Amino acid sequence: MTHLPEIIAQAASRISAFDEVAAKSAEDRQNQLTKPAGSLGELESLSIQLAGITGQAIPKVFKTHVLVFAGDHGVAAAHAVSAFPQEVTAQMVYNFARGGAVINAITASVGAGLTVIDVGVASDLDAAIPVLHKKVGYGTKDWTVQPAMTVDETVSAFDAGYTTAMDVINTAPEHKFVVVLGEMGIGNTTSASALTAALLGVEPEDVVGRGTGVDYAGLQRKVAVIKLGLTRVGRGLDAFSLLQELGGFEIAAMVGAMFALAGSRCPIVLDGVISTAAGLVAAGMDPKIGRYFIAGHQSTEAAHRLQLEGLRLKPVVSLGLRLGEASGGALALPILQAAAAVLRNVATFAEAGVSDKETGEQVE
Amino acid sequence: MTHLPEIIAQAASRISAFDEVAAKSAEDRQNQLTKPAGSLGELESLSIQLAGITGQAIPKVFKTHVLVFAGDHGVAAAHAVSAFPQEVTAQMVYNFARGGAVINAITASVGAGLTVIDVGVASDLDAAIPVLHKKVGYGTKDWTVQPAMTVDETVSAFDAGYTTAMDVINTAPEHKFVVVLGEMGIGNTTSASALTAALLGVEPEDVVGRGTGVDYAGLQRKVAVIKLGLTRVGRGLDAFSLLQELGGFEIAAMVGAMFALAGSRCPIVLDGVISTAAGLVAAGMDPKIGRYFIAGHQSTEAAHRLQLEGLRLKPVVSLGLRLGEASGGALALPILQAAAAVLRNVATFAEAGVSDKETGEQVE
Repeated sequence: MTHLPEIIAQAASRISAFDEVAAKSAEDRQNQLTKPAGSLGELESLSIQLAGITGQAIPKVFKTHVLVFAGDHGVAAAHAVSAFPQEVTAQMVYNFARGGAVINAITASVGAGLTVIDVGVASDLDAAIPVLHKKVGYGTKDWTVQPAMTVDETVSAFDAGYTTAMDVINTAPEHKFVVVLGEMGIGNTTSASALTAALLGVEPEDVVGRGTGVDYAGLQRKVAVIKLGLTRVGRGLDAFSLLQELGGFEIAAMVGAMFALAGSRCPIVLDGVISTAAGLVAAGMDPKIGRYFIAGHQSTEAAHRLQLEGLRLKPVVSLGLRLGEASGGALALPILQAAAAVLRNVATFAEAGVSDKETGEQVE
Repeated sequence: MTHLPEIIAQAASRISAFDEVAAKSAEDRQNQLTKPAGSLGELESLSIQLAGITGQAIPKVFKTHVLVFAGDHGVAAAHAVSAFPQEVTAQMVYNFARGGAVINAITASVGAGLTVIDVGVASDLDAAIPVLHKKVGYGTKDWTVQPAMTVDETVSAFDAGYTTAMDVINTAPEHKFVVVLGEMGIGNTTSASALTAALLGVEPEDVVGRGTGVDYAGLQRKVAVIKLGLTRVGRGLDAFSLLQELGGFEIAAMVGAMFALAGSRCPIVLDGVISTAAGLVAAGMDPKIGRYFIAGHQSTEAAHRLQLEGLRLKPVVSLGLRLGEASGGALALPILQAAAAVLRNVATFAEAGVSDKETGEQVE
């Protein structure tokens, strides 16, 4: 397929190019602040990127939010590609809802909002728990033998992510949101690795890792399963079709959220391999989106380094994480806030009356 | 000299060993939390270290604070080892006092307290500005020709740092503080590099960097100056004597603060090369202190990697910073808070009723 479904084409039409003028203005200001030029390294680069994304030469205080999309994978139900049984997806959604998971602790600690969305958990969840119930299906199909999702399901999952992100943005339209996109789905590193191999044109062996902890035999099964999927779909498919064939409900939802955020000039923080696979899909569907991405962290999962290289992103932190749930991305949020705060609040040499390096004279 | 001055020996007597029992308890708990064991990487290690430092198996919510000690260096006044004139030290203290510097923006952003202390600025500062006035001297002596400080001055600067840190700790005795130690002092990378070369037994060429931005000729001058200093003091001096011979008021004050913090079981976050040179001195004076250190970040300054290897520390973030002012260390604070929050707030598999990996059975 070469045309994007109408709803996606509409979402794409809202996306503007990165604001090079705002970014240049931010860069110029960084060079006037009371510090040696360049001495804040990537904190300066991040502040400049935030300016270009938001279109604000001096980025205003922004709100932070984390979206965790949950979905199950037919490929995990059919093949033993995860160290954990599929029921854990639903159990972890309940854990999120009770506030007991890692991402609950981290979002509370860094002061970010958190919304958990069921877009494809394989079982019915209690309607009363505080998650958004936007289930598109009860897990995907086993993509070694058939498409993971129909086109309609893929569009519905995209729309679930899109509307969720728009609803967050609309809670405070006067602010920009910086949003981390994460997920929960037993077996979804296998789908993410398959997508990554297809989109980057690399071998399954290069993008397969131990996920949440499979052993060596499990690793071999993941490679074999991915080869089956890649052989089935063949070459030459576009990013949307690959998403439909090999993706997952939560991956499609993250892609939808990315379109919403980029269309609203909001920075998108990627998490680990599944989140970044969604990023590869979204950038494949609309290359403008790539400039809205910030790599929250470097995962230890094998595919992640290749994914970040493919997207030309440098991770904010590198702490050896491989959990998912948006945990690594959320840890980057205070650093992004600090980067913007420096640009916003630090005095220039002229303002502070501090001597300039070049002349050695006090600037008045 | 082989005996520490009495005031320092007393401070050392308060320092307990790292609490291995609390650390082991934290490690055991990490392995029961609802995530694959080890999947939070260094966030887990940090939480375990926080437990061992504080003696709290589950670290309580802690307060964060940043101390920036300012002092001038005779070696900078006598030799052109900095890209900036010496007056900038005082000018930057005024900038801190007005809230216009990078560390003001970062501490406000991460929610940390900030105290700036004049221990050795070369000029009189306005007594009305909101900094602690604990000046020991008007800059150190040029250590290429004589000791940077007298023993009495070194002890006084140590005491200034010690009492400052104790006063911070005593503002909330019911809490632990995690404190970042930073500095401002034109030319102080040269003193820090000299101390590092002497303490680690490496060549000046290996520990000299561009500081705030000297050119190639400046780099050569720094190397030559350090060689003069090292030749003058000779080999075999203990850490305290090296501090007195080659250090600075702000470096001695940071050492004093380290003794206070370790003696109160408070984690000490190091910043860049000057802060970490103080760490090498403190650990040289009392090896127990080394376990209380957390390397906030990896500086781009050449000596820093060797210093961290010498202290066996792994930096929390690596963002290409080379500013000082505690800026890199302060960026690590939200990650330390998140590390503790995970240990404190995440449910265990048993508590959450999430299936265990090994058995695949739901744990009740």
